[in-house]
Formats: sequence, C-alpha cells, structure tokens
Amino acid sequence: MPATPYLRVDLARLRGNIRAAADLAANGGVGLRPHVKTHKCVEIARLQLAAGAVGISTATLGEAETFVRHGFDDVFIAYPLWLDTTSAGRLTDLTGDARVAIGVDSVEGAANAGRLLGGSAVELLVEVDCGHHRTGVPPEEVVAVATAAARTGLSVRGVFTFPGHSYARGAPAEAARDEAAALSRAAEELTAAGLPPRVVSGGSTPSLAHSDLGVLTELRPGVYVFGDAQQWELGVMPPSAVALTCRTSVVSHAGGRVVLDAGSKVLGADRAAYATGYGRLPEHPEARIVMLSEHHAVVDLAGAALPPLGSRLDVVPNHVCNAVNLVDTLFAEESGELRAWPVAARGLNA
Amino acid sequence: MPATPYLRVDLARLRGNIRAAADLAANGGVGLRPHVKTHKCVEIARLQLAAGAVGISTATLGEAETFVRHGFDDVFIAYPLWLDTTSAGRLTDLTGDARVAIGVDSVEGAANAGRLLGGSAVELLVEVDCGHHRTGVPPEEVVAVATAAARTGLSVRGVFTFPGHSYARGAPAEAARDEAAALSRAAEELTAAGLPPRVVSGGSTPSLAHSDLGVLTELRPGVYVFGDAQQWELGVMPPSAVALTCRTSVVSHAGGRVVLDAGSKVLGADRAAYATGYGRLPEHPEARIVMLSEHHAVVDLAGAALPPLGSRLDVVPNHVCNAVNLVDTLFAEESGELRAWPVAARGLNA
Repeated sequence: MPATPYLRVDLARLRGNIRAAADLAANGGVGLRPHVKTHKCVEIARLQLAAGAVGISTATLGEAETFVRHGFDDVFIAYPLWLDTTSAGRLTDLTGDARVAIGVDSVEGAANAGRLLGGSAVELLVEVDCGHHRTGVPPEEVVAVATAAARTGLSVRGVFTFPGHSYARGAPAEAARDEAAALSRAAEELTAAGLPPRVVSGGSTPSLAHSDLGVLTELRPGVYVFGDAQQWELGVMPPSAVALTCRTSVVSHAGGRVVLDAGSKVLGADRAAYATGYGRLPEHPEARIVMLSEHHAVVDLAGAALPPLGSRLDVVPNHVCNAVNLVDTLFAEESGELRAWPVAARGLNA
Repeated sequence: MPATPYLRVDLARLRGNIRAAADLAANGGVGLRPHVKTHKCVEIARLQLAAGAVGISTATLGEAETFVRHGFDDVFIAYPLWLDTTSAGRLTDLTGDARVAIGVDSVEGAANAGRLLGGSAVELLVEVDCGHHRTGVPPEEVVAVATAAARTGLSVRGVFTFPGHSYARGAPAEAARDEAAALSRAAEELTAAGLPPRVVSGGSTPSLAHSDLGVLTELRPGVYVFGDAQQWELGVMPPSAVALTCRTSVVSHAGGRVVLDAGSKVLGADRAAYATGYGRLPEHPEARIVMLSEHHAVVDLAGAALPPLGSRLDVVPNHVCNAVNLVDTLFAEESGELRAWPVAARGLNA
C-alpha cells in the first residue's frame, strides 16, 4: 500500500458514473465530450471513450497536447485562449493528429486567432455567458464574434457555455434552464445570420440531469466521473457514488479531536460558500473537517469515539479537480488490487 | 519567456528577505531553521544556508528525503509523524547522511517511535500547542511525552510549537506572546524533570518580528522568503517585498471585467477569513480578484481602464506555499534573465 495520504479511485464506482452519463447522453441523442481536466488521466479518458464519448474537452493547450500524444484524436479546448505565435504553432501542430477546436469570446479574440491560425484546420466555438458571469458573450453578441471568425477563414463549429452557477444549493435546475435559454437564443441568432451551429455545447455535473437535450447537442461534464464533497453537499451525487477518496492516517488526538495527515496539499484548499467544511468523511457523515492546513485536517467527529492513532480514515475532497491536480499518481482499486495511474496532464496550466 | 501562467521569483527581493530573517536570528543569538515546505526548492534552501541557517525544517518525510539527497545534512521534520515499519526505515536511512529529528505530540506517538526507531540516531522534539489548537500538547503535558520518549532510548532534543493563530488581523504580537509563554513553561517543566531542552523552537512569518528570543533558541518561518497576499493583507510584508508572483495573460473582457488565465490550479484556492479576494495585483492595489475557478481569475479593477486582451498582469497568490506546490518549475529572474528552478519536493505529501 502507498504511504498516506494518497488518492484512491474505486473503479467499480468510476465505471458506474461513466456509464450513467454515457447513457444519459445516448438516450437523449446528444454527444458526450467529457472534460478531462477533472482527472487528467489517460486511463480514465479511455474508459470514457469506450463508453461512447465523442471526444474530450480540455481547459488548456498542455492538457490537449498530452491527450493527443496518447492517441486521442478529437479535442475541444473549452477556453477562450488568447493566442500568440508560440501557442498558435502548438495548436496547429496538434491538427496533424487530431480534430481540434478552441473557444473564443470576443471579436478581437476571433481576429487574433484568424491572424495566427491562418488556413489551419482549427475550429472555433463561440462562448456564451448563460448566467455564470465568468467568460463568454451574451447570446445577442454571438453573431458578431462568429462573423469576425468566419471572415478570417476559420470554421465556426458552433457555440458553448458553462452553467457554472449550478454550483449553489438548489440552483442546478434553474442553471440548466438558463443554459438552454442562452444557447437556444445564440443558435437562433447564428442560424438567422447564415452561420448555423453544428454543435451547441453545454453541461456541468450539477446541472447534468436537468440539461435540455432538445437544445444542446453536446454535454461536457467533468466531475461526474468521481464526484466530490461539493456534489455530495449539493445533493447531486450521493456519497455511495463518490469514486475518489483520499486515504489518510490519524496522526494526533490533540485537544480531543482527530488530526489527519492530509491537508490542502493533497485535498486542495477549496471551500465554496455552501460547503460545510474542508471535505467529508464517508464513514462519519456527521463529522466535519473544521480546520485545514497544508498537512493537517482537524476533524470534529460529532461525538463519535476517536479512531486510534495510526488508523486509516478516508476523506472525500471538496473539489476533486484540484485534489487530482496535486498528485502524480492515482491508485485505482478493483477487487482489492491497486493499479497506479499517472495523472499525465498534472500541472499543465498553459 | 514561458507561456502564462507561470510563477516568477524576483531574486533580488528573495535575497533581501532571506537576509532580513538571517539578520534577525543572528542579532538575537538564535538559530534559523527555515521551513522549506514553502519553496520545496534546493536552490532557495542553499541561499538560506549560505545566509547562516542552521538547518532546514520540512513537513514530510518525502521533503526530507529530497533535501538530504541534495546534500542537506540537518533536517527537522516539524510534524508529529505516526510511524510504521516503512516510514521508520526511510527515516533511519536518512540518518546515514544527515542529522534528523521529528516531532511527537503524544505518549503513544513517543512509544511507537521508540519501538520502530530502535537505537537509531533520530531525535524527537515534543510539540506544544501554544494557542493555534491544531496539534501539540499543552505545556504541562510535555514531560509525560518526553519521558515516554526518553524511556525508549530516543534522544529528546527539546520542544517546538507553531503559533499559527498569528494568521489573523492584529494577531501576530499576541500569538508571539502565547508562543513564548507556552514554550517557556514547557522548557521549565522539562528542566525540572531532568530533561532540559537543548532546543526551544518556534516561529511563523506573521509573528517573526515579535518572537521572544529570550525564550526561543530556534526560529522556523517559511513564507518569509517570498511573502504572499496573506502577508500583505496582514500587514506583515509590504507588496514591495513580495518576491513571487504569477505572471498571467488577459484572456477576456467579458462583462466589462478582466479575466486572467490563472486560476486555482496555479494560484491555489486558499481564501482565509481575512482575505479580501483570491490574490492581489501589485500594479493595481485597489483591484480584487472576485471570482476564481481552475483557469480563470475574474478581476474587479476598481474603475481602472481594462488592460488590453493578451497583455500581461502579475498576481500575488494568497498562500504562496500552495501555489508553489502546483508547479514543477519556478522562474527566477535577475537582471532580466530567467533561470528555471525545479520545485524538487513538489507533491511529496508522504
């Protein structure tokens, strides 16, 4: 067994989660293009493709390069990249081995991409803001961006959005309605302008079950493969579906509490406004991690007896994407056997 | 230049910070044993030793192994390790090349260490809780732990604490007083029990200037080499002393705000209760990062004109230790030249 703390994947649960999203997409007649930033792991992306995914989504060029190097041949970098000569060259290189698309959310970005990507096969999707208010243009401005892109000779594949405002208690269904409304309006505008979208892409793990598959043609969830304490606390995935945990050891009983050897350097420091602590313990659902530093998690066990010093406890990280990005290896367990899976795209932010 | 986002170290400021702490320790007649978990970087630890550090502190066995492999010969793992056969073997192996000590904060931990470390040269320091309430025993319980350790034949070097409650506005001076009171009491108890401490160790970056060098014989600050937005906002280090920034690019003007290509996967997701955002911008001290996701920082520029798309902006991470642990390389700048410094102990949580 590896030394604690380490991240452990329950392969049976992982397969179940992969299958559930694949079925949802297949039954709805839409494509599933999972976001691999969650796991950054070639072995897991292969399971997703084997279950019917049409391709993968990444957040960065470095992630895209890693997966293309491992044979993935259809990648959408779902991010409004601002290209320069170097990144445009890296992107163009990828098109020798894969179908490649990137996001764009401004007329200037479209013009810049057109200038740098020349007559390349890289396609663009215009990002729409459906209420998360991070990146993306309002639906009524999609035509301006798409026209600027088309003018440079680049192919505009369609539109995409991220309904990230689904990450709040009670918000997923409404976020999915916002997503459908914004994408529907954007698609109508593009069609009216003679640039009908081939792809209308959305999706987030909290809103997934509410996605309007009459509007969307593609889903890009990421977290669904593992789940995490955020999904648990939002009521999106029950703890029994969570496929990744951090195995920890009890190192201290200081102050009559349990202190674990896992901290923000393996769990991540995420704590959303709705989170009740810094991660959750499946064996102790009433417990809360009340204090987290780099290598300590202080647990309030809500009156339960203290597990002995040296014993093992599993923790579900709040935000699994950031936890995975802290380790070089995931340990996937099936029938008591552990396999080491490299986090191949770890740390590739650029 | 590396692609953004990347972490950049201002070498002149780094040297200045290293010198200031070295002077403080030398003038007070105490040893400086910097915590290398902040930088995990051999090149920076060498600068600290060259400036007079007596050795290094680490949080994990993996960090200790990395530094010993690079020639560091005096390491204190300032953590109450719960040993098993494997980790005890790794620890004993280190003693061939270095003077090694670990922390302990329970009678059971001392007995366990004694059982597994046999007649090894590994020394113990008893951890005292001085008010942070994470790990460590109250000062009046130090003798019990030290006696249990001494009974096994292990050498007890002394006591240590971490005044982590210095991390709050206005708290550093009082935290330093708590530290001195707890360590002083612990040292008296040990002396009265015939186990006088050779080392009385404390220190944190916020409380460093207030440390009672009549009580402490050793200081273990970590963050002081770089500083970060936490130190800036606590008033401990001015922005002009901050030696590490994340260089980012403006990728979007969505919603009339600036969106940068740096998110929680390079800055870390830390946001202390007193933090005013998710990092600070030295060129725009009034600005705040109001929203942070994995690859986006949304900035409210407080009315300033939007920097153009594609332009560069520097961000000071909230908590530099977690930011550094996300990258494989630091880029150290001096006189316009960049040197790539590996984050040699990145990700070594165990």
